[in-house]
Amino acid sequence: MSHFKWIENGSITSVPGFRAAGVTAGFKRNGSPDFAMIESEVPANFAGAFTSCTFAAAPVQICRRRVLESSTIRAAVINSGNANACTGPEGLANAEKSCQLTAARLGITSDEVVVSSTGRIGVQLPMDLIERGIDLAAAALSRDGGAAAARAIMTTDTVPKAVALTLEIGGRTVTIGAMTKGAGMIDPSMTVPHATMLCYIATDVKADNALLRELIAANVADSFNRITIDGDMSTNDTTIVMANGLSGAELTTGSEETEKFRQALLAVMQELARRMVMDGEGATKFVTVNVRHARSAADAKLAAEAVANSLLCKTAWFGGDPNWGRVVAALGYSGAQFDPGKTDICYDDMPVVRCGGDAGTPESALCGIVKQREFSVNVDFNDGAFDYWVWTSDVSYEYVKINADYHT
Amino acid sequence: MSHFKWIENGSITSVPGFRAAGVTAGFKRNGSPDFAMIESEVPANFAGAFTSCTFAAAPVQICRRRVLESSTIRAAVINSGNANACTGPEGLANAEKSCQLTAARLGITSDEVVVSSTGRIGVQLPMDLIERGIDLAAAALSRDGGAAAARAIMTTDTVPKAVALTLEIGGRTVTIGAMTKGAGMIDPSMTVPHATMLCYIATDVKADNALLRELIAANVADSFNRITIDGDMSTNDTTIVMANGLSGAELTTGSEETEKFRQALLAVMQELARRMVMDGEGATKFVTVNVRHARSAADAKLAAEAVANSLLCKTAWFGGDPNWGRVVAALGYSGAQFDPGKTDICYDDMPVVRCGGDAGTPESALCGIVKQREFSVNVDFNDGAFDYWVWTSDVSYEYVKINADYHT
Repeated sequence: MSHFKWIENGSITSVPGFRAAGVTAGFKRNGSPDFAMIESEVPANFAGAFTSCTFAAAPVQICRRRVLESSTIRAAVINSGNANACTGPEGLANAEKSCQLTAARLGITSDEVVVSSTGRIGVQLPMDLIERGIDLAAAALSRDGGAAAARAIMTTDTVPKAVALTLEIGGRTVTIGAMTKGAGMIDPSMTVPHATMLCYIATDVKADNALLRELIAANVADSFNRITIDGDMSTNDTTIVMANGLSGAELTTGSEETEKFRQALLAVMQELARRMVMDGEGATKFVTVNVRHARSAADAKLAAEAVANSLLCKTAWFGGDPNWGRVVAALGYSGAQFDPGKTDICYDDMPVVRCGGDAGTPESALCGIVKQREFSVNVDFNDGAFDYWVWTSDVSYEYVKINADYHT
Repeated sequence: MSHFKWIENGSITSVPGFRAAGVTAGFKRNGSPDFAMIESEVPANFAGAFTSCTFAAAPVQICRRRVLESSTIRAAVINSGNANACTGPEGLANAEKSCQLTAARLGITSDEVVVSSTGRIGVQLPMDLIERGIDLAAAALSRDGGAAAARAIMTTDTVPKAVALTLEIGGRTVTIGAMTKGAGMIDPSMTVPHATMLCYIATDVKADNALLRELIAANVADSFNRITIDGDMSTNDTTIVMANGLSGAELTTGSEETEKFRQALLAVMQELARRMVMDGEGATKFVTVNVRHARSAADAKLAAEAVANSLLCKTAWFGGDPNWGRVVAALGYSGAQFDPGKTDICYDDMPVVRCGGDAGTPESALCGIVKQREFSVNVDFNDGAFDYWVWTSDVSYEYVKINADYHT
């Protein structure tokens, strides 16, 4: 029995005090919505986590500055279709200018605005489109604009990704709403979120910035950092949480209520992470890789990520091929220390490898499992106390098509 | 002007004193040749380098034992279609039995025989087929069987890969002949060769086992360890060099002649490495990734391998898309330390990125380069004295097809 309740068709605007909009500014050639705005009616505490890519995009640099220098924020603007990455001083000035224009339009200050961009790298932001986007979005801001905002931040995503839930904290109802985008350039090997992945989370709980940062960092490790689609990571990855305090419920470090909130926040982040993998570019499978009883946490992680990122495993899954040799090969080159002779592998609950060799399950039974939309690869090293899991997808013709054609 | 001369249609049997054969034993369902034998008419010194995969296949375990316990060998047997990996004590006994049968047939001892297998993991070796292969191959051994042997070790390779060259050492003509297979499970991040990659090298130079080992280790680092097709590595990778001394030319550690020989051997190994990438599963491009002026050797290697293994770069290359954002993103997440603002990138000689931003070359010019069968991505960090290069391929629809269908 969970202590929180999902809101049907929930989004960031399910949270009291937040308005949002998604509009077409013209970044995308096909006329799809490509500009989103989120506004908090009152100053919101906030925290962020960002790509560790050396080439961090201009908007990421702005967000990092806000996290250091601003105590609260009021708004976020997000464009898709242009990443404003590798754009030098001009790109940075454009990102700052986007904040200034938004601030002027909303009657706030530019250090109360955060900005994200996603799309093509290396092209300067067309500022006329940014201006148009800000004007249209500011005019369209509404209490039920969350779904439109989630749609406007999509790139190769096929479905918008938005959720919300409520829980009770100290006798008051607290809401968490969030949206994310990201279907390619997704890889888990980060200490912070990553992966042409944008995630905006709003809540009406009251928490200071340090606590929000702590909650985000802990939860990212168990959600967005557990997913991989193609092993690539983006220049623009950003997760921002905004907390406006309007529920009256207040979190304090280390309290039981805070842990309750963290778990609900984790549910939101895991659900979005799961939807990102489900909507991975060209993905036809959702695969959970579990590694159990490894000698160390590092060994468990290395092993799980090697299998989850193996192009040979991912193409075999696409083909519905139970070829466990590829799983074994990936474990073998992962760098994890383990005893092959003690290693067992199951697909779902079906034994595949026993003590490093064929477990003897008929291939037809294994085919039945890997032909499913969703299954798990369960590796047991029987050699220690450390576990790790990763969610991944397959690699299909469609993946190649999407990424060979993305540019043109 | 090189100091060696390629032999047209050269192979392992271009080397005096070596016979070889390639026959159909029945491992492959389609009736293609699948069993090869190499024989040295006199005992040959030898050395090997093997996969670092934790699940090393049974034949790899046998080869490692030979390297430790045998001073010379006389023969090698290789089957394709079955990897004899993850086959436990039975698999190890079968690999040893293959050596015994070969020894009996050739009138030598089993510790003079090395064995390799490549193909599906986790299935016990059908010993009746091994027996048939040994009988047929022993009967077919000939002075011009090198090409047939190279054909028999293929799996998803589309062309056999064999070369030979001659050079002068101390006034005598020395020959080096070699064959390799491997088109998938190819990744460079190994300290020894790797990657469903088998390479057998024969020479008539005289060199002791320690020197041969030293030469192989040095050259593998600059050949097979520089190539990547899919970032996966195999349980069975093996490189064996056999030196029968029949030329009368002798190598001694540290001599100028030895360096001359090493360079010729490197040319052989690089040519085979190059052909493996050219014949990579579904590959339509051959891409050299050069990283220059990095702060450390490790930084140069991390950066080059990240680009070479990036699924997003590889699909862009397949699409003939000059999208340098993906190169920049891969450099950014590679873990290499560098200054983005100092980073230049060229495709062949055409500037793409200057000081971390768009170099302004018209896209049409860049398209012209990446549409070629072969081009280079040249990254200059302008920040140190360390270089590294890698050869890689693209990822195509055909790659997915081959690997989704391999099993069935």
